Amino acid sequence: MSLNNTINDEVPLDHPRYESLKHRHEIIEGMKKLIVAEAGLIAHGRGECFDYILGESTSENAKEAIKAAIALLYHAKHPVISVNGNTVALCPKTLVELSKIINAPLEINLFYRKEGRIEAIKKVLEDAGAEKILGIDDTNMVEIGELTSNRRNVDPNGIKIADVVFVPLEDGDRTEALKKIGKKVVAVDLNPISRTSLWADITIVDNIVRTLPEMIKIAKKFKNTEEEKLKKILDKFDNKKNIQASLNTIIEYIKKQKKDAFKILKN
Amino acid sequence: MSLNNTINDEVPLDHPRYESLKHRHEIIEGMKKLIVAEAGLIAHGRGECFDYILGESTSENAKEAIKAAIALLYHAKHPVISVNGNTVALCPKTLVELSKIINAPLEINLFYRKEGRIEAIKKVLEDAGAEKILGIDDTNMVEIGELTSNRRNVDPNGIKIADVVFVPLEDGDRTEALKKIGKKVVAVDLNPISRTSLWADITIVDNIVRTLPEMIKIAKKFKNTEEEKLKKILDKFDNKKNIQASLNTIIEYIKKQKKDAFKILKN
Repeated sequence: MSLNNTINDEVPLDHPRYESLKHRHEIIEGMKKLIVAEAGLIAHGRGECFDYILGESTSENAKEAIKAAIALLYHAKHPVISVNGNTVALCPKTLVELSKIINAPLEINLFYRKEGRIEAIKKVLEDAGAEKILGIDDTNMVEIGELTSNRRNVDPNGIKIADVVFVPLEDGDRTEALKKIGKKVVAVDLNPISRTSLWADITIVDNIVRTLPEMIKIAKKFKNTEEEKLKKILDKFDNKKNIQASLNTIIEYIKKQKKDAFKILKN
Repeated sequence: MSLNNTINDEVPLDHPRYESLKHRHEIIEGMKKLIVAEAGLIAHGRGECFDYILGESTSENAKEAIKAAIALLYHAKHPVISVNGNTVALCPKTLVELSKIINAPLEINLFYRKEGRIEAIKKVLEDAGAEKILGIDDTNMVEIGELTSNRRNVDPNGIKIADVVFVPLEDGDRTEALKKIGKKVVAVDLNPISRTSLWADITIVDNIVRTLPEMIKIAKKFKNTEEEKLKKILDKFDNKKNIQASLNTIIEYIKKQKKDAFKILKN
């Protein structure tokens, strides 16, 4: 966290915070290429902070949530992956790979419809191998109720008809709206108590750059698993308990810091 | 935290997160005016997260740290206030007011020496009433040891000769370096366990936009207070205990969320 001013192209591979700095750089470059909104940089910073106090690793309860998420996505008739600028800037390849494995189309859905942003995001996804991208034809969008922001405009062949929507890196308003029109929602959010986290049916409290590869691994493992087994996994998943387990992880991390943090002063 | 996409000029005054959104807007505008570095937006997001889990209010222990900070700054022979882009974007007026009350010059000290940034920051401070600003004449800077970044270049009439340096919103490397060359450091940092927080002599774990007005209030109150009284305040201040009190505040906040956060689902 203290290295908040070391973004550059020459971060050595063995730098203790290499991964974090690399993603910080991707987000800043994403903004310069119009993919990421200015507010997306601030949101990324909040995510960094939560990832930090969660120990910057994918917890066991996050892995349980990922299994339930894949089970729900396989169970769905019309699953859709809703993508925004930050997600595309951080992990275009894994987004496209997951989309193909679970056979769920990618739909671009943005809060900020800045001139050229849709096109920039579309290009990154196509370069990453995406064949079908929804949410790009403004003349063909329909509105969903409960929402007043740009996000109310959805693709008639995507979110509109979806029964399960996967919303990585999301603001709270839409998850609540999607729930109110009867969709099941799977979210990835490093803030365990954001409205997205609380409203989602399945909340994966983890860093999207670690979550997507894990989802791909589990999706391959669960491919062709019989319906009954998937249903069992879903039935035993408790989202509230899972979120509370993440809050416990934070409490334990802070308690540990109370003892250990000051040791660096002795170096 | 969930309103991470609602920055605009029309946030209503009665919006529950008006203050937070206003400052987010100031940081984004600051970047557009060259005052704030791109990485400064991400750093602001981290600050938002820590402020959130600290309850977004100035704690009693932060107020104790502020009293000790003012006592140390009055006690100093050559106090200096080191400013960066984020600080100036968020609170130019209170920076200038504090500088005048405690008679400590403002020195611009940046990690990113982007073309035009120094001038942009200088103008904002001058518009806020600053009469003397240090760190702006590159031909007249000297280097301090222990540092390799741009921050090693300091003003011979400022940080170089200072006995106490006030560093609001800082990265860890420099605080450590300043300590190693014998300076006393007062820091403001929402991350209680950043290297800045741990290395500083007095760490104010609070949001700079609340801290500076409180510092001004205490500085006025302590004006002309006899040396003995100031020394007593300093002697009884324990920075490690103070930081641990902030960590306790986070633990209590998260524990409360484990019980209360889910109530919004019933609305």
